[in-house]
Amino acid sequence: MPPTILKIGGSVLTEKTDTPTPKPSAIKRCAAEIASCHPSADNPLILIHGAGSFGHPQAKKHDSPDGFTNSGIIEIHRSVTLLNELVVDALIESNVPAATVHPFGCTVADAARISEMQTAPIALMLACGIVPVLHGDVVMDSKLGASIISGDQIVPYLATQFGASRIGFGTAVDGVIADGSVVPEITPGTFEAVRSHIHGSEGTDVTGGMFGKVRELLGIDIDSYIFSAVKPGMIAGFLSGEEPGTRITKTGNRPRRLP
Amino acid sequence: MPPTILKIGGSVLTEKTDTPTPKPSAIKRCAAEIASCHPSADNPLILIHGAGSFGHPQAKKHDSPDGFTNSGIIEIHRSVTLLNELVVDALIESNVPAATVHPFGCTVADAARISEMQTAPIALMLACGIVPVLHGDVVMDSKLGASIISGDQIVPYLATQFGASRIGFGTAVDGVIADGSVVPEITPGTFEAVRSHIHGSEGTDVTGGMFGKVRELLGIDIDSYIFSAVKPGMIAGFLSGEEPGTRITKTGNRPRRLP
Repeated sequence: MPPTILKIGGSVLTEKTDTPTPKPSAIKRCAAEIASCHPSADNPLILIHGAGSFGHPQAKKHDSPDGFTNSGIIEIHRSVTLLNELVVDALIESNVPAATVHPFGCTVADAARISEMQTAPIALMLACGIVPVLHGDVVMDSKLGASIISGDQIVPYLATQFGASRIGFGTAVDGVIADGSVVPEITPGTFEAVRSHIHGSEGTDVTGGMFGKVRELLGIDIDSYIFSAVKPGMIAGFLSGEEPGTRITKTGNRPRRLP
Repeated sequence: MPPTILKIGGSVLTEKTDTPTPKPSAIKRCAAEIASCHPSADNPLILIHGAGSFGHPQAKKHDSPDGFTNSGIIEIHRSVTLLNELVVDALIESNVPAATVHPFGCTVADAARISEMQTAPIALMLACGIVPVLHGDVVMDSKLGASIISGDQIVPYLATQFGASRIGFGTAVDGVIADGSVVPEITPGTFEAVRSHIHGSEGTDVTGGMFGKVRELLGIDIDSYIFSAVKPGMIAGFLSGEEPGTRITKTGNRPRRLP
């Protein structure tokens, strides 16, 4: 059964400040929306969340031309782990059978790109109806010592590995915005025209923001939706089959199931 | 550089009760002893700890002929994670560059034996001087849904993968005890004679106790030492090259560096 992949941005779950600051009510609401769609072995879901203020400021602080020190690696990983605990606690309180898979322990990067990730445990979790929860993380890197792997990079990697049915990006904005409006669809053919209108996330984002997301998604052949997860009901809508926000697709011009 | 592997038993770090009860002063002392030996890229160390009362009672509670339920899997993993956090916190407070690798996220079992474990991140951590910390855990199992993988099983697996230089098992007893005394050495040739004198751990141990340890260690060709980690200084002694307690070896009859 191909899974759905949902990523919730760090800017949805945390305040984009210089110190780790969660948004507890947003975390709880996102968990409840996921719970309302009953992920299971027949309706498998992989959840990935960003690091927000639990990861970006720490990564920026420890970044240097010589790479991360061991204490930097450990501090970044422990900080994002704290946010992950809040997310998984909220999911479990909402009766979602969620379990963390930290990229740090199962992933190797090569020059800041995922080169190897152990996905066999994730496959077995999905088959049992467990929702694996991954997150943007620091991982060991065969070239750089260690590097930051964003949630945005994990999404297409796992989507490809598992042949995901669809991908949702719950962000702090309504989709890809160009000249004040949501772009309904981006295909490889229209990307260049839209590109100059795409801006990065506000606040500290070391992993590429909106432009990075679209670029990652255009590389794979699975329909993806970038939408607001700040507006209540949008995550539940996406998980129920709606097609909110901006669709990123290779094929294009198909009818859409809008909310 | 071949790593040393140190396992610290759950009975050293926790009270063997029916509810999770840590021994904070023992955790702190073990961390300080490890710190005193300065693990680094030139002196690499993998640490594995047991689950004690954070894992065994929970595994027993959720055990059934139909295997673990999802909520059982999640409860067991979250409980052992709590102990792991205490251990890693203590290591970091002692300035050991320690980082957790949860078996749950990087391991698959086949009928309760490790069939696949992602060790590439661990190799890169060792090369950087980070001390990877693993622990007895529940993992997904291709035959059983999920199963318990003890620290005792992880030790020989990683020792073989990394060609470990030596293995230490810090336990609550002075070594393998037969007729009231510590057996100085066990080889494949003497195992049968000693076997009837080996008893399992006291308290709830779902993973095989002392007999299980010796059986796992006899399967590999790396000298291993079972000793007391309750007595202060024994972990530091082992990490400094001493040969405390009972030696498990394939070759036998070599001179020993006793404390």
